[in-house]
Amino acid sequence: MVPHLVTALTGPLLDLEKKILAATPAIERWFRMEWQEHTPPFYCSVDLRNAGYKLAPVDTNLFPGGFNNLAPEMLPLAVQAAMAAIDKYCPDARNLLLIPETHTRNPFYLQNVARMMQIFRQTGLHVRLGTLNPEITEPTPLALPDGNMLVIEPLVRSSNGRRVGLKDFDPCTILLNNDLSAGVPAILENIHEQSLLPPLHAGWAIRRKSNHLAAYDEVAKKFGKLIDVDPWMVNPFHAKCGEVNFQEDNGSECLADNVSMLLAKIRKKYKEYGIKEKPFVIVKPDAGTYGMGIMTVKDANDVRELTSKQRNKLSVVKDGVVINDVIIQEGVPTFETIKDAVAEPVVTMIDRYVIGGFYRVHAERGVDQNLNAPGSQFVPLAFAQQHAVPDMKAKPGASTPNRFYVYGVVARLGLLAASLELERTDPNPEVY
Amino acid sequence: MVPHLVTALTGPLLDLEKKILAATPAIERWFRMEWQEHTPPFYCSVDLRNAGYKLAPVDTNLFPGGFNNLAPEMLPLAVQAAMAAIDKYCPDARNLLLIPETHTRNPFYLQNVARMMQIFRQTGLHVRLGTLNPEITEPTPLALPDGNMLVIEPLVRSSNGRRVGLKDFDPCTILLNNDLSAGVPAILENIHEQSLLPPLHAGWAIRRKSNHLAAYDEVAKKFGKLIDVDPWMVNPFHAKCGEVNFQEDNGSECLADNVSMLLAKIRKKYKEYGIKEKPFVIVKPDAGTYGMGIMTVKDANDVRELTSKQRNKLSVVKDGVVINDVIIQEGVPTFETIKDAVAEPVVTMIDRYVIGGFYRVHAERGVDQNLNAPGSQFVPLAFAQQHAVPDMKAKPGASTPNRFYVYGVVARLGLLAASLELERTDPNPEVY
Repeated sequence: MVPHLVTALTGPLLDLEKKILAATPAIERWFRMEWQEHTPPFYCSVDLRNAGYKLAPVDTNLFPGGFNNLAPEMLPLAVQAAMAAIDKYCPDARNLLLIPETHTRNPFYLQNVARMMQIFRQTGLHVRLGTLNPEITEPTPLALPDGNMLVIEPLVRSSNGRRVGLKDFDPCTILLNNDLSAGVPAILENIHEQSLLPPLHAGWAIRRKSNHLAAYDEVAKKFGKLIDVDPWMVNPFHAKCGEVNFQEDNGSECLADNVSMLLAKIRKKYKEYGIKEKPFVIVKPDAGTYGMGIMTVKDANDVRELTSKQRNKLSVVKDGVVINDVIIQEGVPTFETIKDAVAEPVVTMIDRYVIGGFYRVHAERGVDQNLNAPGSQFVPLAFAQQHAVPDMKAKPGASTPNRFYVYGVVARLGLLAASLELERTDPNPEVY
Repeated sequence: MVPHLVTALTGPLLDLEKKILAATPAIERWFRMEWQEHTPPFYCSVDLRNAGYKLAPVDTNLFPGGFNNLAPEMLPLAVQAAMAAIDKYCPDARNLLLIPETHTRNPFYLQNVARMMQIFRQTGLHVRLGTLNPEITEPTPLALPDGNMLVIEPLVRSSNGRRVGLKDFDPCTILLNNDLSAGVPAILENIHEQSLLPPLHAGWAIRRKSNHLAAYDEVAKKFGKLIDVDPWMVNPFHAKCGEVNFQEDNGSECLADNVSMLLAKIRKKYKEYGIKEKPFVIVKPDAGTYGMGIMTVKDANDVRELTSKQRNKLSVVKDGVVINDVIIQEGVPTFETIKDAVAEPVVTMIDRYVIGGFYRVHAERGVDQNLNAPGSQFVPLAFAQQHAVPDMKAKPGASTPNRFYVYGVVARLGLLAASLELERTDPNPEVY
């Protein structure tokens, strides 16, 4: 189970919440048994959308940021989960090398890195930072907003070529917090003696959202059967358009057809459940990242004639190659707000444990828009108030601890799907 | 590493604290590697004594109570550790049977049981209570001070005789919170299909403190070498008198000789380290429990002529047999006080994780007396204040988070010793 956190609201989650709470023992047992078969990613965060009538992951991040947004009271949980994770890969570890993103001018991101270092140091590891930025050729201090310093250092391949580390620093575990959007750097290839976590194929140079969604379909189906709900309640419809080339205006038809088909499917479900919302879909690059290139579409005609700006946004240029595969996902409106700003929960996990979460809040965005955009703010999910124990008799929606438990369950569905996805896309599957 | 808790005081721990903090990575790595070789007890609490110049476990409890004394904010840590523990023994568990003590009229103990049930329910298990009290022949409600109810039920052996449970309740794990002082009950014997935790030989019907102390000697020696301190800094001297029969006034000589020998050894150490305290020893039954029969002795002459009341206190009567083996342990004065009352920390662990702690406080006892006695009170160790991160640069003793980390390390030395002890005293060692 997961910690009980204060969530921002106590509105209805209705039938789904009730069913998840009633099935808690079955759900936890199912997770325990799945984790006997599948290895969870080292860490992961899942963005959720709670529409009231349904609750679903909309993004599963294998290089989670935002550790600085977790409530400080939650840190011991993170440390304990990190101990369990390290134990699994490197019980004799002394050193951990953390490789952050190279956009090191973002003070929020640096605070995230500092928080991660703190967590891993508290597990008893020496932690240092290595950078993929080739311009950093010597240890370079970076100022944190609180006046402290981080030092990033150039990566060094060992003289026999088999290990990667820093000068005078040979790590057992190399933890990537860099999503490899820029491609797999040669210095990280062919590392077999050290644990490189998550593996290279988790990076956006190789990863595709469509593989994750296919794995999630299976997980949601099993889960729906387990607790006797329509899997759609935790799983947005989705489709993919490959073979498209927006630059040459090739593929708009496929996109429009898929948008049209998805909107029809959503309309049917809305009718079945008496939902009065207006259906919409989200179009995003299959290889995309950073919440970029995400489009909200309410009518197929809107994508028949894409502007060149929209086309560029949907294309991902990687190593000079334009990748145009896009996915189309049922939009899940969020019904959560914090002080009138639209909010969505982000749940953070280490190994198979939920260690905390926060709300991503965007005052200038609508309930049907991507919140992972400039201007978003973060509100930590703190511990529930004292004595807020899970109240099985509470009316659904009336109990904040119950609400967060439900979030933790759905986030772990995303975690499990990520684990299946990484297994199936592993270029060296013999390690499993 | 362990959560950072607010400890009651910030006095000096001096050299030992400094050395432990400096060696954190080596210590954590050593624990990780020891836990690869040895299985920690399912749960455990360790009573510590902090004398300023030394810090040592004085009691290692394999049936910990006082879960109700843990700060409620710490519960998610307990739940997470319990998940890891259950995973190890029974990943497919649906049901957990908890067998509490039979002294069910103690409201504090009942709150402890209720808290444990809450923790295990939050891991997603169905939890029910079975009793060893033969007078309970049907489900019996017990009122909790907060107005809630617990229900204890008679144990039932399955029809094929191979499993134990309750009516319509077949557990995978049976968790004992009954220390079996009254002997091993027949209904718990020969359970091979279920996990009985801790094992029967952890109960006081079989367990001997002297075995634990022998294992602890080894652990302390390794630890002393690891961080380059005299193992005495974390390990009180001890000796054992077997073959004694106080009822027949046989053995007082052995006791007096050992007291005399230990006092001399302590005096030598005090001289070596310039300690001005007056040495004392604690005499207690080798098979004892509940803090009963514990005597503070400052002079060997005090035990040459024991009163018959003292003799009775030191004897343990079990199944009609009088057990007179006593251990003599170097007394570690506590220099901790809370509002002028003498205090000692109790650290609680599940699996290999420190999940919290509390102070046992006794207003009417001295710094050299047993505090586990009627009249003691409990003060939870809450989370350290926000941003209280381990400050490696803090002056030893000046930082409460550092203090609690050190407590967690020494408590885990006791945990590791308990693990060795249980391995070595296992009547069916093939399971390891």
